[in-house]
Amino acid sequence: MVNSRLDQIRAANDIKKIAPSDYAFLAEEIRSCLIKVISRTGGHLASNLGIVEVTMALHLCLTFPVDKLIFDVGHQSYVHKILTGRRIQFREIRTHGGISGFPKRAESGSDAFGTGHSSTALSAALGFAAAREQLGQDYKIAAVVGDGAATGGMFYEAFNNLACLKGNMVFVLNDNGMSISSNVGAVAEWLKSSRKHSPAAFFDGINMDYRGPLDGHDLEVLVPAVKEAFESSRPVLLHVLTKKGKGYGPAEKNPVWYHGLAGKAPGGGKGEETESYTDVFGKTITEMAGKDSRVTAVYAAMEHGVGLHGYRDVYPQRFYDVGIAEAHAVTFAAGLAAAGLKPYVAVYSSFLQRAFDQMIHDVCLQQLPVVFCMDRAGIVGEDGETHQGIFDLSYLTLMPGMTVAAPGDKDELREFLLWSLEFPSPLAIRYPKRRAYICPIAERDEIRLGKSEVLMQGRDIALLAVGSMVEDAVQIHDILAQRGYWVSVVNVRFIKPFDRELLFGLTCRHRLFVTMEENVWNGGYGQQVSAYLAGSGSNVHVLNIGIGDMFVKHGTIGGIKRELGLDKDMLAEKIIKEYRCCEK
Amino acid sequence: MVNSRLDQIRAANDIKKIAPSDYAFLAEEIRSCLIKVISRTGGHLASNLGIVEVTMALHLCLTFPVDKLIFDVGHQSYVHKILTGRRIQFREIRTHGGISGFPKRAESGSDAFGTGHSSTALSAALGFAAAREQLGQDYKIAAVVGDGAATGGMFYEAFNNLACLKGNMVFVLNDNGMSISSNVGAVAEWLKSSRKHSPAAFFDGINMDYRGPLDGHDLEVLVPAVKEAFESSRPVLLHVLTKKGKGYGPAEKNPVWYHGLAGKAPGGGKGEETESYTDVFGKTITEMAGKDSRVTAVYAAMEHGVGLHGYRDVYPQRFYDVGIAEAHAVTFAAGLAAAGLKPYVAVYSSFLQRAFDQMIHDVCLQQLPVVFCMDRAGIVGEDGETHQGIFDLSYLTLMPGMTVAAPGDKDELREFLLWSLEFPSPLAIRYPKRRAYICPIAERDEIRLGKSEVLMQGRDIALLAVGSMVEDAVQIHDILAQRGYWVSVVNVRFIKPFDRELLFGLTCRHRLFVTMEENVWNGGYGQQVSAYLAGSGSNVHVLNIGIGDMFVKHGTIGGIKRELGLDKDMLAEKIIKEYRCCEK
Repeated sequence: MVNSRLDQIRAANDIKKIAPSDYAFLAEEIRSCLIKVISRTGGHLASNLGIVEVTMALHLCLTFPVDKLIFDVGHQSYVHKILTGRRIQFREIRTHGGISGFPKRAESGSDAFGTGHSSTALSAALGFAAAREQLGQDYKIAAVVGDGAATGGMFYEAFNNLACLKGNMVFVLNDNGMSISSNVGAVAEWLKSSRKHSPAAFFDGINMDYRGPLDGHDLEVLVPAVKEAFESSRPVLLHVLTKKGKGYGPAEKNPVWYHGLAGKAPGGGKGEETESYTDVFGKTITEMAGKDSRVTAVYAAMEHGVGLHGYRDVYPQRFYDVGIAEAHAVTFAAGLAAAGLKPYVAVYSSFLQRAFDQMIHDVCLQQLPVVFCMDRAGIVGEDGETHQGIFDLSYLTLMPGMTVAAPGDKDELREFLLWSLEFPSPLAIRYPKRRAYICPIAERDEIRLGKSEVLMQGRDIALLAVGSMVEDAVQIHDILAQRGYWVSVVNVRFIKPFDRELLFGLTCRHRLFVTMEENVWNGGYGQQVSAYLAGSGSNVHVLNIGIGDMFVKHGTIGGIKRELGLDKDMLAEKIIKEYRCCEK
Repeated sequence: MVNSRLDQIRAANDIKKIAPSDYAFLAEEIRSCLIKVISRTGGHLASNLGIVEVTMALHLCLTFPVDKLIFDVGHQSYVHKILTGRRIQFREIRTHGGISGFPKRAESGSDAFGTGHSSTALSAALGFAAAREQLGQDYKIAAVVGDGAATGGMFYEAFNNLACLKGNMVFVLNDNGMSISSNVGAVAEWLKSSRKHSPAAFFDGINMDYRGPLDGHDLEVLVPAVKEAFESSRPVLLHVLTKKGKGYGPAEKNPVWYHGLAGKAPGGGKGEETESYTDVFGKTITEMAGKDSRVTAVYAAMEHGVGLHGYRDVYPQRFYDVGIAEAHAVTFAAGLAAAGLKPYVAVYSSFLQRAFDQMIHDVCLQQLPVVFCMDRAGIVGEDGETHQGIFDLSYLTLMPGMTVAAPGDKDELREFLLWSLEFPSPLAIRYPKRRAYICPIAERDEIRLGKSEVLMQGRDIALLAVGSMVEDAVQIHDILAQRGYWVSVVNVRFIKPFDRELLFGLTCRHRLFVTMEENVWNGGYGQQVSAYLAGSGSNVHVLNIGIGDMFVKHGTIGGIKRELGLDKDMLAEKIIKEYRCCEK
C-alpha cells in the first residue's frame, strides 16, 4: 500500500510513532498527497512542497495543542494540517464547507493563531511568549516566517521587540531565496551574505541565538537542531535553506507559477474570451506607459497577481517591486507623485488595508495624484476570509479627497485608466478577480468625474450597481423584464464623489432603489444612498444588496455569492418581493 | 540688538550669508526663539532644541526649494521653518490661522513632503530619488529620522528598498537615545553598540555609506560631514548624536515632559477639577489590574500621552511599550489574548489607523478579546490635520465583530472599562483629549451591550449624541428649553452594535433626530441613523451634525468646533431652523 506511513498519522502528534528510518518515505508520501490534491483544488503548491521536512521536524519536537506553532501568512501550513488530523479534510481544502487554505483557530486546536496576510507571526508569537511568562505556564512556541514575509515592516517591529522576551521561542526563518516572485532589497542581500558569514555575533548582541544556515530538507540535520533550539533559554533564530517546489520537477523549475494554483477553473489570461480584469489592467498600463513617460508602476511582491509581468519586461526602469511592504509602497508612491511622476500602485484590495493610514496621511491629505489599482475587490473565492476585498468601498470613501471608482466592464476599466492620466488628485479604481465582463449596451457615456451612467432606462425600480454587480444587474434586468417589470439599470461608476444629481432625477420615476455592491453594508455605497434618501425627503424605498456585517468564508465565487443571497435569480425574487411591499 | 543674526534670515537660503564665526551665536538665538514661542503656544520643545545645529548644517548645504529636506514625524521641523522665511509666522505656530506644527507642502515650497505620523520620511525620500533619476533631474535629497521613528516598520520597509536607489541621498539618523519616552528594543541596542563599533562594513554590503557617529551639536564637525555626504555617489547614513532639550536646562533634565508642551491652556491632570479622560483611563486601568491579573497594557511609545505612566510604576511586568509600532502592538495584543490574557491597547485614534488591517485580520476575524482604549478621538486641537481623531467611528464600524463604544462622561469611561473586563470579544472605547465631563443627570443606566441611554426625555426633537458631544447636547437641551423646546437627549454609548430598538421607540414622539458626533460623516454614526430611517419607512427627519468630507486644521479645540459650526449656540440655532422646516 502506497500511503502506509501517512496512514498511521490520524491525529496530531502521531508523527512521533513513525520510525526515523521511515521519515524520508513519509516526506515523499506527503509530497504526493500535496501534488495530487492541490492540482485539483488549487492552492499553494510550491511553498508547501518546500516546507515538508521543516514541518516534520517541528512536529517531532512539539506537542499539540499544548505547544504553539504559528505560520506566517499561513499558505505553507498544508503539511501541518495533514499532520494534525486533517488529512481526509485536506482533499477538500479551499472548497465550500471544506477546510481553509490558511490556519484557523476555529478549525483546529493545533492552529494556535490564524494568519493570511504577511508578517504577523512573530508579533503573535511574542504575545504568546509574554502571556506564558505572565501566567507562569510552560509550553513551546515556534513561528515559521518566510524570507518574503521578512520584508514586511511588522516583522521588523516584532523583531525589534524580541528583547522583551524572557525565555525561549524558536523563530524559523524559511529562506527559499524568493518572496512570492523574487525577493528584493537589503534584507535579501543580508540573508544571502549570512549564508556565508555567520551573523551569530550580531544576534548575540540582541539576546538571541542564531543557528544556521541549515539544509531545510535534511531531517538528520533538522530534527536535532530544532530539538536543541527549544532547549535554549533565549529566543533562537533557526535559519533554514529550502527549495520552493522541492521534489516536484515542474514546481522546482517554475516556483512563481506554482506558488498559487487556480485549481481546475479557468485561470484567465489565455485568449480574449477569458481575459481577466487583471489582464486588462496589465495591457492598458503598458500602453499608457508608452505614451506618457510619467507613468510608473509600484507593487508589493505580487507582480503576476496584479498583472504587471508584461509591463515589467517593457519598462523595467519605471517599475518598483518594494517587497511585501504595502505601507512603504503607498508613501513611496506619494513621494514619486510629489516629485512629478504619475504612480500607479497595483495591489489587492485586502492587502491595501495595510496602508490605510498612509493613504489618508501621505496621499489624500497632500492631494497627490497617486492612482490605486485595486485588484481582487469584492468576493475572491478560495482564499477566503483574509483575502476577500469587501471593505474597500467603506475604507476608501471615508478618506477626504479620495475619488473612488469601480468600472462596470472591461472597456470601462481601460477607459478609467486612460482617464486617470490627467486626473490631478488621489484616485482608487477597484475591480474584481474575475473574467472581464463585456457589457452588451452599445452606446456608452464618456467618463465624467462623479457621474454615474444610466445603462437602461426603465421605471418603478432602479438597480444601482457598483462594478462587478453591473453584470448581475443587466441579467436581473432581463429576468425582471420577462416578469413584466421594466427596470432602470445604473452603472454607478463613481462611489465617491457620489452622483446626487442622478439620484435626485431617478426619484421622480422610481419607487424602489436597489443598491448592489460586493462590499460590507457599513460605510458602503448602499448606506450612502439610504442616507441620501433619508435627507432628501423623498418617498423612494431602498433595498441594499451587499454583504452583511460578517467575514466571508472560502468557496467558489459563484458558490459564495449564492450563499450570500447574491445570486441573480435569488436577487430577482427578492427585488420583486420588496417592490410589492412598497407598492402598498 | 539681540537677534541680529537671526534678523538677517528673512527667506530660505539666507543662512548662507551668515559668517561661520557667527554660527554659534545664531544657534543660541534660534534656541531663545524656540523657548520663548513654544512656552507660550505649546508644541515640541525638547526635540527642536536638540536639532538646531543639524538643521543649520543641512541648510548650509542645501538650496530651497530645489533641494528636498524631509523630516520624519515633522515635530522637529521648527528650526527649518524659522530658517525658511517663516520666523514671523512662527510666533503663531499651532494657533488658528497660523502655521502648522508639522511640515506642509501647502505652507511652503521649502516643505518638500508633509509629515505628522512616524516613519514615513525614508519612503517619501526614496520616491523623490526614484523620480529624480527617472526625470533626469539633479537635486539633493535628505531625510531626517529620529531613532524613535526608526522603530516603526515602515522605516525598515524603506530601508530594505534603499538598494533600488541609484545615486545619492542623505539619511540623517538623529540619535538622541530616546523615542518619545525612552527608546525600546533591538534597534536601540544596536544603535548604542554602533556608537562604539562602526557598522560601516554592514552598510557597505547593502550599497550604503555609513558616517558617524558624529557630535550633532558641533557645527565644525557637522557642516563638512553633511557637505561630504552629499558628494557621495551612494546613499549615505549620517549618524548624529544629539541631546533632546539641548541648551535649556529644564528640558535637558526632563526631555519627556518637554517633548510636547500644551501651551498656556490648562494641561489637565492637576486636581479633580481638571482631570482628563486620559487620567481617568490611567487610574481605572491601574485599579483593574489590581483586581484582575489578566489585565495587561500595551502601548506604542506614548506612555505619558495615553496616561499609563502611573500604571507602569505599579505593574511593570504587565506593561509593554513596543516602540512606535502600532501594527505590531495590535497583533502582539491578539497573541496575548489568544494565550489567555486581557490586553488593553492604549493608543491615539489617528495613530491606530496604522493598525487598521491588524485589527480586522488578527483581532476581529479571530474574535479575540482585545480592548482598544482610543485616546485623542475627535478634535484634538493644536496638532492639527494629521492628529485629529475624526475617522475612527467609520473605520471601526466597518470591521465585522468589533464593538464600538464612546463614553459620554467621566464616570462612564470608568464604567465602560470595568464592564470591558468580562466582555468576550473585540472592543473599542474612544474618548477625547479633553477635561473629563461630569454629566449632571443623577440617575444613570447601567452599561448594557448595544444599548443607548436616554438622559432626558422630551418630545419632537431628539439629540443623539456620541461621546464628547453628550456635553454639548446637554447644554443645547438647556438653550432649547429656554426657547420653549423640550428635547430628548440620548447618550448613544454604543455606535456598534447600533440601538435600533431605541431609535424605533423614539420615532413615535419625535419629528427630528439630530445626530451629533466628532467624526466624518462618511461611515459615521449619523449616516447609520439616516440609513436606518430610510429603511424604516418612518417620517422622522434627520439632521447630521459632525465633520464634513475634509481634513481639519489646527487651532484650539473650541476654535475648531466654532469654525466647523459645532459650537453649541450655532448648533441650537441650526436645530431650531431644521425643526421649523420639518414642521411644515
